[in-house]
Amino acid sequence: MGRPFVFINSAMSADGKISTRERKQVRISGDIDFDRMDALRAGSDAIMVGIGTVLADDPSLTVKSEKRRAERKQAGLEENPIRIVIDSKARISPDADIFKKGKGRRIVIVSESAPSSKVRELGDIATVIVAGRDKVDLVASMSKIRDIGVRRLMVEGGATLNWGMVSSGLVDEIYTFVGNLLMGGITSPTLIDGEGFTEEETIKLDLMEAEKIEEGVLLKWKLLP
Amino acid sequence: MGRPFVFINSAMSADGKISTRERKQVRISGDIDFDRMDALRAGSDAIMVGIGTVLADDPSLTVKSEKRRAERKQAGLEENPIRIVIDSKARISPDADIFKKGKGRRIVIVSESAPSSKVRELGDIATVIVAGRDKVDLVASMSKIRDIGVRRLMVEGGATLNWGMVSSGLVDEIYTFVGNLLMGGITSPTLIDGEGFTEEETIKLDLMEAEKIEEGVLLKWKLLP
Ligand SMILES: NC(=O)c1ccc[n+]([C@@H]2O[C@H](COP(=O)([O-])OP(=O)(O)OC[C@H]3O[C@@H](n4cnc5c(N)ncnc54)[C@H](OP(=O)(O)O)[C@@H]3O)[C@@H](O)[C@H]2O)c1
Ligand SMILES: NC(=O)c1ccc[n+]([C@@H]2O[C@H](COP(=O)([O-])OP(=O)(O)OC[C@H]3O[C@@H](n4cnc5c(N)ncnc54)[C@H](OP(=O)(O)O)[C@@H]3O)[C@@H](O)[C@H]2O)c1
Repeated sequence: MGRPFVFINSAMSADGKISTRERKQVRISGDIDFDRMDALRAGSDAIMVGIGTVLADDPSLTVKSEKRRAERKQAGLEENPIRIVIDSKARISPDADIFKKGKGRRIVIVSESAPSSKVRELGDIATVIVAGRDKVDLVASMSKIRDIGVRRLMVEGGATLNWGMVSSGLVDEIYTFVGNLLMGGITSPTLIDGEGFTEEETIKLDLMEAEKIEEGVLLKWKLLP
Repeated sequence: MGRPFVFINSAMSADGKISTRERKQVRISGDIDFDRMDALRAGSDAIMVGIGTVLADDPSLTVKSEKRRAERKQAGLEENPIRIVIDSKARISPDADIFKKGKGRRIVIVSESAPSSKVRELGDIATVIVAGRDKVDLVASMSKIRDIGVRRLMVEGGATLNWGMVSSGLVDEIYTFVGNLLMGGITSPTLIDGEGFTEEETIKLDLMEAEKIEEGVLLKWKLLP
């Protein structure tokens, strides 16, 4: 039934890259932006990333502030939002930090093409949802996670998952912190990779906010229909 | 002796692309930003683009405002700044709009590998400068155009020339209009393509200005040493 409210939060270089050609996590923003991101996490029902980001960065995706975790508990919630990985072939390692760090529920969304032994193994440490044949069907995924109570979903990348979500019409807002550095690179991941739109297909945005933060700018965009 | 003051002016999508995967000119900004660009042109001694942009967009690179052209003439200048194309193999057509539209000097900077017949042909309609063996040597080019009086150079892209200039340490400032649309695409040209920097090599910037213009944001960055 329907889908959650979905927003992408990302940090990018002044030339639109979310990492260098080395595809490793790079510090793009400072402490204030980091804290802003933490608040966004704490205010979400779930946080989602693509398997590319898990393999590259091994993020834990937990709420870092003790105060915010305590507030969530007081509100009757888990300390951390549900952590969701989009992973067609169930490539994620059971040793990934997402499973090891912090309390809270984990969901791995796989496709029918994921090896069943791997799916069983992941079943011990996470909820495994199957959506799509060869690749995760994101539209179906959104409806499934809405059904289990996710009303506000934060997408934290990377470039390919952002494309999948945006091109499927599943994103309501995008928040980008534009940091004070240049990365360059024809192969460096950008805010939105994938196949790309033709001019006719480009998605129009409404600029909701532009605010200087530390050495960069935070841009908040709403996607128009 | 030295080089000009060099700035890049560009319009990009909210995800850092300067064109879609189709690599055709796309309207990213509105009339106010267009006029801002025209003023920047009129205030420059020369305007430079890469051959990729000439082949894709066939821009004329002239000053559009009659008033600004008149003001330049009153100041004893040509109506239009010198138009420079970086074109190692002299691939530009003599029918390009850059040669046909507007008054003023044209310079084509080629490498030693450019076919001499083509160089001779271009010599009738432009000043041809040779710099570099197989590819245009941008450092040498900057010093040569400084010698002929270019003190303020506006670079108007594209993605690969921007990389060449930035990675050679030849750029002082970058102005980007971030427009209200998403283009996506792993192959779409970004503000800076090329090989890309490693994390250590990334260039640090200073945000000089962030201003809402029409439906987007103008960001002015200074490159730090
Ligand atoms: N600066 C930031 O804010 C930020 C945030 C996050 C990541 N990053 C960077 O982004 C890079 C990783 O990005 P990435 O593009 O390689 O990986 P990604 O977007 O994290 O993951 C993409 C993968 O998700 C899987 N997927 C399954 N179904 C999909 C669908 N329908 N649509 C799209 N993807 C689907 C695909 O792998 P399968 O086919 O195997 O399922 C796909 O390759 C890293 O360099 C990381 O550091 C930066
Ligand atoms: N939105 C905007 O503001 C804007 C502005 C301009 C362009 N664009 C878009 O950008 C795209 C074109 O970009 P592009 O990257 O394909 O072409 P480009 O940057 O305009 O030209 C690149 C070419 O310049 C030549 N070059 C010679 N020496 C070089 C050097 N040392 N370093 C770098 N380049 C050198 C190379 O060709 P040779 O080896 O043959 O010399 C190279 O392929 C088009 O899609 C266009 O629409 C957008």
